[in-house]
Amino acid sequence: MHALRLTDSGPVLDANYPAPRPAADEALIRVRLAGICATDLQLLAGYKQGYRGVLGHEFVGEVVEASGHEEWVGQRVAGELNIGCGDCDLCRRGLGKHCRRRESLGILRRDGAFADFLTLPVANLHPLPDSLPDEHAVFVEPLAAALQLLEQCHIRPDDRVYVLGDGRMGLLVAQVLARTGCDLTALGRTPAKLDILTTRNIPTARTDDPAALAQLMAHPADVVVEVTGSPDGFALARQLVRPGGVLALKSTFAADLPAFDISSLVVDEITLVGSRCGPFPPAIRLLATGAVAVEPLIHARYPLDNGVAGLAHAARRGVLKVLVGG
Amino acid sequence: MHALRLTDSGPVLDANYPAPRPAADEALIRVRLAGICATDLQLLAGYKQGYRGVLGHEFVGEVVEASGHEEWVGQRVAGELNIGCGDCDLCRRGLGKHCRRRESLGILRRDGAFADFLTLPVANLHPLPDSLPDEHAVFVEPLAAALQLLEQCHIRPDDRVYVLGDGRMGLLVAQVLARTGCDLTALGRTPAKLDILTTRNIPTARTDDPAALAQLMAHPADVVVEVTGSPDGFALARQLVRPGGVLALKSTFAADLPAFDISSLVVDEITLVGSRCGPFPPAIRLLATGAVAVEPLIHARYPLDNGVAGLAHAARRGVLKVLVGG
Repeated sequence: MHALRLTDSGPVLDANYPAPRPAADEALIRVRLAGICATDLQLLAGYKQGYRGVLGHEFVGEVVEASGHEEWVGQRVAGELNIGCGDCDLCRRGLGKHCRRRESLGILRRDGAFADFLTLPVANLHPLPDSLPDEHAVFVEPLAAALQLLEQCHIRPDDRVYVLGDGRMGLLVAQVLARTGCDLTALGRTPAKLDILTTRNIPTARTDDPAALAQLMAHPADVVVEVTGSPDGFALARQLVRPGGVLALKSTFAADLPAFDISSLVVDEITLVGSRCGPFPPAIRLLATGAVAVEPLIHARYPLDNGVAGLAHAARRGVLKVLVGG
Repeated sequence: MHALRLTDSGPVLDANYPAPRPAADEALIRVRLAGICATDLQLLAGYKQGYRGVLGHEFVGEVVEASGHEEWVGQRVAGELNIGCGDCDLCRRGLGKHCRRRESLGILRRDGAFADFLTLPVANLHPLPDSLPDEHAVFVEPLAAALQLLEQCHIRPDDRVYVLGDGRMGLLVAQVLARTGCDLTALGRTPAKLDILTTRNIPTARTDDPAALAQLMAHPADVVVEVTGSPDGFALARQLVRPGGVLALKSTFAADLPAFDISSLVVDEITLVGSRCGPFPPAIRLLATGAVAVEPLIHARYPLDNGVAGLAHAARRGVLKVLVGG
């Protein structure tokens, strides 16, 4: 099959990559469409050094084979990317996505979605309603990650909330949080991106405007979500959260933070919440009802065979979602 | 009056320091007994550089004057150390202990308890039951700080919990957490300190025993409380918490943490909770019923006039609580 692999010399389109074979209780899935995520770009940049294989973990596909689970064959699905061993202390506690021996589609020990086919356990699959087009369904995984914030943090309607970062994830997080009724402001530097929120009645502010920034600093938030993906963003987010407040981290960085005054977290009683993958069913519900706008986030679409160019496009400054395949 | 002041050249006993005068709605309090805390020692070591004044914030005293609040006169009290402006956004939200313009007894802009007299707003005072001796009542403030963990974190009876650090605060935290019924182990390096807990049926383990440490690492906890006061302690605590778990920080460090991989908090979905001062009423209840043992924590008692020696004693390795005054 065709597959976009990360090799020691960068991403390569392989026209003769062996198609994966499903193990017991796994499905073989034909990929219909996949999305490029910041994590893919960080893998290219050296994050989680050592992953070599097919990239991609956001996808919509069709089950073509599922031995012993034939009711899935022909279904259009999204799929959760983490596969725990099923047997360790964490898996037994329902924490399989944190299993130390886990595989993660296109990230860790398992070939991903930038390919004609992938395999996943049937238990990872979620059927998609017919009304949900592929171009929206491919956002199920990142929207689930945005919703994970609400699984972890109680956002109160009376909370002042700042979402810092107007990238792919930031725009999803802002739309999800706006639905809580909280006093939300989305912060970023790119007018074209912030406009996607403004037109949806979500207040925005420019962090590169000193007057706007001073205004934000003067009114620190109960909850700040850091989605910039940069250590600078973390430092600013820290300044924007009130004492006793919550700073949620939705970014992974390829680099360490510089030396860090952790005592200030104690004195100011800040709660730092690391947040990663989230629940698929509410993401599917919100996309199926059109409650979260994803169409304006799509900046380009590349056939799989031109996926290397798609990755380069996605890495360009200001570019939001680039889709691959279809 | 006599007062133990922190000066540019270190702590000094001043026999002619002016007694403080209570402002409106403040009480003048004669100090009966005070306790030396790690924060006092960190102030000596340069933490919060700039504080110069009378040290001490753990105390039991007697109200001698309270204009307009005469019902307090003669009462034996403990007192909360933070004094907000009462008027800012934080104070209006009930977050006065985090007020940016706050004073903190013996820590920030307000003379402390290692003196014959101190002043505090009447609103900061808590009456003490007669049954509670001064030697126990002086632990109200640090025990309240230990209880703050339970205000911030939901500790479930089924949780595995590690308390890392067998110092003054660690021994209080362990006793408080043990009462939840959780699967608690207190970790430290000093057999004599851990024995205080062992005799109270709280399991302990030595972090300087490689076999014991390996055993702990193999069973990471749902909740880890870091109370060592050292950056090394933070690194170990991080290793001891399971993915999705809570790492509560009860220590301030005089030094920054070294460069820090914050992405690991995101990937492992760790919640970091900074925790400082806590509620006095439950601390008074637990001490009055003898539910928390503090007697074994008292290692020495110095008259105020010999308080400089008391500070030196408290700073010695292995020493727990040193009391001043009385």
